Amino acid sequence: MSERIRIAVDAMSGDLGPRVAISAAQKFTAKFPDVEIVLFGNEQQLITYSSLKKLSRQRISISNATDVVAMDEDPLHALRHKKNSSMWLAIDSLNKDLADACVSAGNTGALLAMGKYLLKTFPGVERPAICKAMPVEQGQTYLLDLGANTNCAPEHLHQFSLMGKILAASVSAEPRVGLLNIGTEATKGTDVIKSTQDLLQQDSRINYVGYVEANKIFTGEVDVIVCDGFHGNIALKTCEGTARFIAKKIQAAFKRNWFTRVGGAIVWPLLKQLRSELDPSMYNGASFLGLQKVLVKSHGNANKKAFMQALIVAREQVIQNIPARIQRELSNQTISFQQ
Amino acid sequence: MSERIRIAVDAMSGDLGPRVAISAAQKFTAKFPDVEIVLFGNEQQLITYSSLKKLSRQRISISNATDVVAMDEDPLHALRHKKNSSMWLAIDSLNKDLADACVSAGNTGALLAMGKYLLKTFPGVERPAICKAMPVEQGQTYLLDLGANTNCAPEHLHQFSLMGKILAASVSAEPRVGLLNIGTEATKGTDVIKSTQDLLQQDSRINYVGYVEANKIFTGEVDVIVCDGFHGNIALKTCEGTARFIAKKIQAAFKRNWFTRVGGAIVWPLLKQLRSELDPSMYNGASFLGLQKVLVKSHGNANKKAFMQALIVAREQVIQNIPARIQRELSNQTISFQQ
Repeated sequence: MSERIRIAVDAMSGDLGPRVAISAAQKFTAKFPDVEIVLFGNEQQLITYSSLKKLSRQRISISNATDVVAMDEDPLHALRHKKNSSMWLAIDSLNKDLADACVSAGNTGALLAMGKYLLKTFPGVERPAICKAMPVEQGQTYLLDLGANTNCAPEHLHQFSLMGKILAASVSAEPRVGLLNIGTEATKGTDVIKSTQDLLQQDSRINYVGYVEANKIFTGEVDVIVCDGFHGNIALKTCEGTARFIAKKIQAAFKRNWFTRVGGAIVWPLLKQLRSELDPSMYNGASFLGLQKVLVKSHGNANKKAFMQALIVAREQVIQNIPARIQRELSNQTISFQQ
Repeated sequence: MSERIRIAVDAMSGDLGPRVAISAAQKFTAKFPDVEIVLFGNEQQLITYSSLKKLSRQRISISNATDVVAMDEDPLHALRHKKNSSMWLAIDSLNKDLADACVSAGNTGALLAMGKYLLKTFPGVERPAICKAMPVEQGQTYLLDLGANTNCAPEHLHQFSLMGKILAASVSAEPRVGLLNIGTEATKGTDVIKSTQDLLQQDSRINYVGYVEANKIFTGEVDVIVCDGFHGNIALKTCEGTARFIAKKIQAAFKRNWFTRVGGAIVWPLLKQLRSELDPSMYNGASFLGLQKVLVKSHGNANKKAFMQALIVAREQVIQNIPARIQRELSNQTISFQQ
């Protein structure tokens, strides 16, 4: 690591293209004097956009990439054929010690495949787990896995607990770890979940608090919630769907008639602040835990603010030295990974 | 069925006790002249409360039950030992043709066990599926199963699709049925989900629209979303958790200082209406589909309005003759249920 924290940005991926990544990089470098950004993508396009928008490129460099991974591209196809893509080159720059972390808003499957192939997982980790801070009343609750591992054995879920604990250590001295289930009684859940509970109860490194139901994701009662990628993905998408539904309802309510419009205008500053507090972009930036380097996924349709948040997550993980701490934790693991 | 629609109410269960059930019954009978209620529970307590509150008992009768199923009671224990409970007697009254439907806010597991034991499922249905209308932008989306069937074979999910379709037929002529998955690509999902998709695509009775992600629960793009009870339960609880989190944030925002309090007072009528539109009680009332009679579960902490909504759901299903229509649909089923 150089003195500055260097972040490689896949500037071409994501639904909104390079302008989001460039603007976010500019805002990010302006805010944090200790960071440097390398934008990977079509050089001409990136330079033209920066010039058009008169963006400062202080501590921002551009590295040309002739190809792009499409958002709907088959991950295996991307892995085999997109070695000149902005995604590949951005990730690979970590191996060449050109950057300390990589951020991309691209195709999750491709990012997972390339991340695993290029950055490698730590011994014993079959696939990285996707982990994200969820909106909670106080503090942060980390939920993992969010979709990388559809089928998990108890040993995987145990491993997720250890990795999630490391990430949560920055917000809580002794992170409370819960296991997602459909009830808190011992009889509830699948065999995999019951066996996982046994493993977690036996592991003195984990402050295991028991089964938690999905509504506890948002109360801040636990710091880490562990589940397989299928369950995590359902929870994440349901949360997004519910929040969007409520936001639309609120918007429609204030537009109903002239009276509600006047009311809306009066409380506008309040609504604006509320919206910013509830803004999903505040929670952008999912980490691929178990990889040997820091790789952060920004939401595909992230705006500038959201992309900036993903950059902040990446910077924080470099500062916290998360991969090395995960490696240390997992090397203490005595459980064999046989399936 | 008598001329009136008779609903048996387990008045003693639920977190808030009999007062909610009584008040809801009173409001319900006042609103619908075609209904009759039988309250099952401690006769003295029910009479005393009605008298104290000066509630009209027109078309409301009371049937004494000496026992109660506790909210945290083991369902099998309840099934074996609580034959004098308000829950048991209320459900059993359907077999004695004393009522056309039963509503309870009690222990879901006990309700499921007693419902299955007393009312029986239709041939081919191993366990009923719990189904509920979710809040959507327009119309209604029915989600099932919400927790009765943790492990499902493709044949079960196929069956849920047929049952859900019947329920949704009241809101859509040709209900669009989606299968909950973590992506829409054919490669996504577990083997069970992929095999279910094959079954649904082959069944001409079902207007199958493909895989849907959990955020689609709230958009109204599909009328029925089918999943196993584990996934449905996660979606339901995540939705509840998110909505509660946002509601708390809004409340806190308007209480921040005198300025926001004044703003809140000005838009109070609007907030009140918004709250009523988003009120979870509007969506109360989960059905146990696949049982031979109408059994509706009210949320454990339902208030009067929410309990009333569960009564409305029960009334509607009697009018629509849902069990008979499910029976007809399932008897046309050519798929064998071998596992």
